[in-house]
Parts: sequence; structure tokens; C-alpha cells
Amino acid sequence: MQILTRGAQITRLMIKKDAPKSYRFPVIGVTHSCFKEKFGVPRQPGLASAARAQIELFEPYDRSDAFDGLQCCSHIWLQFVFHLSLRDTWKPKVRPPRFGGNRTLGVFATRSPVRPAPLGLSVVKLDAIHECNSKIRLEVSGVDLVDGTPIVDIKPYVPYVDNISSASYSLADEQPEHCSVEFSAKAETQLSTRTDTAQLRALIIQILQQDPRPKYQKTDPERVYGMKLLDFDLQWRYLPRDANECIEVIALIK
Amino acid sequence: MQILTRGAQITRLMIKKDAPKSYRFPVIGVTHSCFKEKFGVPRQPGLASAARAQIELFEPYDRSDAFDGLQCCSHIWLQFVFHLSLRDTWKPKVRPPRFGGNRTLGVFATRSPVRPAPLGLSVVKLDAIHECNSKIRLEVSGVDLVDGTPIVDIKPYVPYVDNISSASYSLADEQPEHCSVEFSAKAETQLSTRTDTAQLRALIIQILQQDPRPKYQKTDPERVYGMKLLDFDLQWRYLPRDANECIEVIALIK
Repeated sequence: MQILTRGAQITRLMIKKDAPKSYRFPVIGVTHSCFKEKFGVPRQPGLASAARAQIELFEPYDRSDAFDGLQCCSHIWLQFVFHLSLRDTWKPKVRPPRFGGNRTLGVFATRSPVRPAPLGLSVVKLDAIHECNSKIRLEVSGVDLVDGTPIVDIKPYVPYVDNISSASYSLADEQPEHCSVEFSAKAETQLSTRTDTAQLRALIIQILQQDPRPKYQKTDPERVYGMKLLDFDLQWRYLPRDANECIEVIALIK
Repeated sequence: MQILTRGAQITRLMIKKDAPKSYRFPVIGVTHSCFKEKFGVPRQPGLASAARAQIELFEPYDRSDAFDGLQCCSHIWLQFVFHLSLRDTWKPKVRPPRFGGNRTLGVFATRSPVRPAPLGLSVVKLDAIHECNSKIRLEVSGVDLVDGTPIVDIKPYVPYVDNISSASYSLADEQPEHCSVEFSAKAETQLSTRTDTAQLRALIIQILQQDPRPKYQKTDPERVYGMKLLDFDLQWRYLPRDANECIEVIALIK
């Protein structure tokens, strides 16, 4: 694929003048996520398999017949609104965290939440379909959605269509490398008193090993980072370790 | 994955009362497709690799810097509006063509165009990025979009995120079987006089071998089917062939 500078052959360039310039879409549901704020949310879906959420469907979309057959799916597409990134303006260039803020890319070459149509697209694992008082809720994992995210559509992931084995994206062909994560004695004690110890340990490691920090920040062992996760504040710091650095979970603050 | 009937544990069920019930998204461009009407459009993207389209970007989104980096993608996601399927109402159940109209499924378990938010999602091959008079247009193939489809967002296909090798959808794990396609002597002559003979032959076969016909229609050799394709009407019929049937391309009508 290359950029061509010659003119394009277009059969019909005239667009109907009365074509709508925008469309309005209903919110069909809302996300109840383990992530309570933007900072720390994985930058793509599937990176933290222990990250769970529930999709609560709104009336009139919360009826079981509208989901009949979805139990045959292992994964689903969520089309959602980046409701914490709504802007009146858009910018043609963004600075993806992957490149440490050192490189700009065109917004349409990224999955940046700040874009002309603030539409998100994530594939997540469908763990269960709950039916409670005739209302449907979906249990999903591997999410990269913050609590309160509005859902506008749900579609099955269809492997023979969506799995493009020949696809490539040379800017991001592989998952970024993982940091090592350790727990302080205090954090270990706090973890051990919970009912969800193993699941929570996995979640914390999966979140932190991707390093939520802006890449341009240097290691400063004095600096404490925090994010709201589930029912607590997770606190951690970066420690120099040989030639690299290591993340230490300091505590789970209630 | 199973349907559970017990109640779900949700930490915060109360949604802010002032959360928007809908969102408006701008149209950033329009599709110029080889498919000029709904009938005959492949039912998923990627089924007809010879099906080409151009995405014309609208002002102010038609600037090259907004697409910087997209040349590193082999495939892109198009989020678009099912503009020919807009309805005032939605139905919880649909009849996917795959099941011949004999089986209903919940709309969210399908990719039906008639859904609460008429948002389409297709992954297509990115063949070229044209720059002409400082305006950007994308050349794509493997499309399942009808001419005039409004585009609301474009995102890179990121293989390490979107390629879920473990995913399954037991209702549609494989591509439907192909019909055999033959050309009448008249159609062969018409094809041979064109400049795009080989490409057009491939396109016609890829479209018809998926059998665009509603599945409940029985073979009737007298019945002629037609669809608008590129600059002509494609006409074909179904002929009994041994225990099966065969599609014969009758003619390309100008």
C-alpha cells in the first residue's frame, strides 16, 4: 500500500446535496466497569483478560429476544461513545501513548478517543448473558472501557469475517513489552484479606505491566501513581532495577 | 458461555439521570461503490475481494495529515450508516438470509442493517491513499457497502487486538457454500469488449457464487434476476444442474 499523488478515478463525484451531514444514534445501554477513571484503562481491549464489566441494557433494548443467538458467540463487538473525551473540535494529528508522545499520527490512523465521531470499537469476551426480572445484562471481560461508557451497538464477532490473518499494521504489529510488577508487603496483606484475591492480583498485574504512565515521564522512586479500580485506589511507584525499572504496588487504599 | 437466569451482581446500578439518551455523529465521507443498489451486495465484507470502492472524505476531514500513518495498515475498519435501512422503529428479532428466512435471531446476535443504531462495521482492504488537489480519498476492496454509504469513522485494523484466533460463533463459523457460476455466450462477448474484463469477471463470480437471492425462492429457470453493478445491469438465472443448481450470467445490460 502506498500513497499515490495522481488523481483518483471516481465515477460519480456529485453527492446529493440533501444528504444528512450527521446522524443521531440511540444509547442502548451503559457499562459498569472495574475501571472508575480514564487513567489506567488498558489502551486496547483484550490486554487485561481479568478486566470485567457488565453491560446493562436500557429499555426497550433490555429484552431477551433481542439477544437470542448471542449465546453462540465467544466474543462480541461493542460500539460505544468516548463520553469522557467529547470535544467541540477535533485535531487532525494525535500523539499515541505507544510512541511516548514523540511521534504524531493522523487521527484516522489511530484508535485515539479524541476524533471527529467519538465512536469507540472494542472486541470483548462474552462470559455470560444474565436474565433478571426479564431484563438482559451482559457479562464481558478483556474490557478497555471506563465505568459509565454509553453503548450504541452490540454485534457478534464473526471469525470468518473479522479474523484477517493476512492483515498487518507495521506501526503496531505486536503488543508493547511488559514491565515487571511486584507487590509490597502491605499490598500483599491487603490483597489476602479480600474474597477476590487471585482475580484481583491478576487484574492489577495485567493493568500495570502495560505501564499506564505517559512514556515521557522518567523514573522517580519518590513519585506515587494512583488509579481508581473497583472499590479502592490502587497506588504504585517505579523502582530502578538493573538497567530497567520495576513497578511496585504500594497499597490498595479504601 | 451460557444464559444465566440468576440475578447479576452490579456494583452501581444507578445511572446519572442526565446522561444523554442519544449522540449525534458527523458524516466524514461517502462511499463510491461498484454496488449501486442493495440487492446483490455481499452479506459480509471480504467475501468479494474484487469489489472495490472509493471513500471520498468531506471537508474538513479530507486533509492528508489526518491520515498520516494509515499507509502502514493493510486493512481498515469502516464505521458507517445503513442509510438505506433507516427506520423509525426497530424489531427485536430478524431473519438472517443465511438461514433462508426460516429462523429468527435477536438483532444483536446479527449484523442486520435494521437495528436500533443503524451503524455498520466492515473491515476492508486498504489498497491506496490518493491525494488529489490536497484532498484525500481512500481506495478499498472487499467491500460490502452500497454506493452513497455515509462514513462516520475510519480506524486501523490492529491485528494483535482484532485478530481473535480463539473466537467462535457457532451459528456462522464458516463461509456459506458457493454456487457455480457460468456465463452465456452473449455475456462472454459483452465481457470481452470491456477494458476491465478479468477484474469484472472475477467480481461477477464472487458476487453471484454467494447467491444473493432470498433462500426461500425455488429454482425457476424462467425467472430473471438483475442488479445494478458499476455502469450496467447484471442479469442472471438459476438452472437445474444434476442434484443442485447453477447460476448462468445472461447479459450485462447498458
